[in-house]
Amino acid sequence: MRSACRAARYAGKRLGFVPTMGALHEGHLSLVRAARAACAIVTASIFVNPTQFGPNEDLAKYPRSFERDCELLEREGVELLFAPAVGEMYPTADGSAGPMQDQNLADRACPELAEGSVRPTQNTWVTVEGLSDRLDGRSRPGHFRGVATVVAKLFHAVEPDAAFFGQKDAAQVAVIRRMVRDLNLAVKIVVCPIVREADGLAMSSRNAYLDAEQRRRALVLHRSLLRVQELAGAGERDVAKLRVEGREVIAGESSVRLDYFEIVDPDTLEPVADVAGGELVAVAAFVGTMRLIDNILLASG
Amino acid sequence: MRSACRAARYAGKRLGFVPTMGALHEGHLSLVRAARAACAIVTASIFVNPTQFGPNEDLAKYPRSFERDCELLEREGVELLFAPAVGEMYPTADGSAGPMQDQNLADRACPELAEGSVRPTQNTWVTVEGLSDRLDGRSRPGHFRGVATVVAKLFHAVEPDAAFFGQKDAAQVAVIRRMVRDLNLAVKIVVCPIVREADGLAMSSRNAYLDAEQRRRALVLHRSLLRVQELAGAGERDVAKLRVEGREVIAGESSVRLDYFEIVDPDTLEPVADVAGGELVAVAAFVGTMRLIDNILLASG
Repeated sequence: MRSACRAARYAGKRLGFVPTMGALHEGHLSLVRAARAACAIVTASIFVNPTQFGPNEDLAKYPRSFERDCELLEREGVELLFAPAVGEMYPTADGSAGPMQDQNLADRACPELAEGSVRPTQNTWVTVEGLSDRLDGRSRPGHFRGVATVVAKLFHAVEPDAAFFGQKDAAQVAVIRRMVRDLNLAVKIVVCPIVREADGLAMSSRNAYLDAEQRRRALVLHRSLLRVQELAGAGERDVAKLRVEGREVIAGESSVRLDYFEIVDPDTLEPVADVAGGELVAVAAFVGTMRLIDNILLASG
Repeated sequence: MRSACRAARYAGKRLGFVPTMGALHEGHLSLVRAARAACAIVTASIFVNPTQFGPNEDLAKYPRSFERDCELLEREGVELLFAPAVGEMYPTADGSAGPMQDQNLADRACPELAEGSVRPTQNTWVTVEGLSDRLDGRSRPGHFRGVATVVAKLFHAVEPDAAFFGQKDAAQVAVIRRMVRDLNLAVKIVVCPIVREADGLAMSSRNAYLDAEQRRRALVLHRSLLRVQELAGAGERDVAKLRVEGREVIAGESSVRLDYFEIVDPDTLEPVADVAGGELVAVAAFVGTMRLIDNILLASG
């Protein structure tokens, strides 16, 4: 992968990179198109990264549609696809490294490797302190350590000029941007808007698991954001009040369980007291067993 | 720095990098010469990295000799020198990031910045678990987090093909090698042998602070290693016995206080039970207030 990417860059071609976990939808394709428009060569990756899933999360049943993903990427003219196996991204020990093995990674996050009794070793972790404990990071301990680490590894394999991420994962965007700045990474982070279904549902690979009734209930996430946007647009500046309004919208939908509803600075993910413009309104909620997220940026200035 | 380095690499020239904290001695210059022999362009950095010093360590009085260092590097034909200010490597917050500031970093590791009431922010840390808690990492908590993080940052600024480190810092070598492997970093790590004074003292920037009497006592570190090497060479395979012998040599020198004397696997830094060949014998001891380290690799096979 590295030599293919370097060949392109050394030939003076700008290299764009779209990292994904596969199960591609229009949101991903919008990233590919943004990369296509800005870069001579577009590369994508498909890797369901075990280290960003918690022990009780949906790693095993995360949707996978590799053949279809390849077709979609080919149709968009993606030149290079990187789809490593888990064992390529997290190689096993060379024998000498026995006691350094990450039991945690082996036993729960990589069941396929643990079963084969070969164990991956990953001693090195990239952590973005502070940010990683907010929003989704608070609900999913260790999630952003896994995200930052795998994105650093992917960046080192691909060495892109620019990488494209979706605003859908707003906390991830903040974590990655901060990591790039803090580690002097030579990559430009481009963030593309959320792509929604006609009825407003934010596109997500996990939507595939919603039945018709859950699908309908899931719309409440977007409705709660629109309500806050509307009130802020009408002049409400008190974040505490806006949060109450947003949470009430969610509470009005039976069998949707709120995880968080926050109004924060989009860079630091810290709560703000007053709306001054540009704040991130972010919501996470369980619809059935499926955890969905959505967000909106308030008009700035 | 990045564009100068890229210009070289894009012209097809192999780029060698020697990261240092300045106060250069023959050990550093041996790294420069190794880089010179292997690479078309040689770049060095001088940066006394505050984040790898503990609160009670010698950051403030770490030796600095920038003008002389520049002369030495120029004489060796180094093409590019990177000597960033602390505030360049650890930029201050942009205002929005107030509560994310690393109080620790600001208040003790960067007194010059804390005094000016501007505070650096560094939320992202690279940690190499396991290895970082052994040998010097056990004696200096947080040290290798600072080392791994700054080396990652320097690598991202320079993007070298190869980087040159001294075997003197054997634990650092293990940490950096592991980081490079775990994070897919595209740099070859080259390790050069310890350079010693005529009487065997391992060269160190900190030797400058030893008075004549301490200088003489400091030779005990090397003597303890030679003793173990001699016994192992004569067939002693029992690591527990070898450790006792090494420690006794140190104990025989008054006013030298042992920190550690260990015989370990050089890659994992884990203790070994028997000498099979290739083990790292490493010692750290205080001579006066100065902490010195030294090591030797046993003959392999």
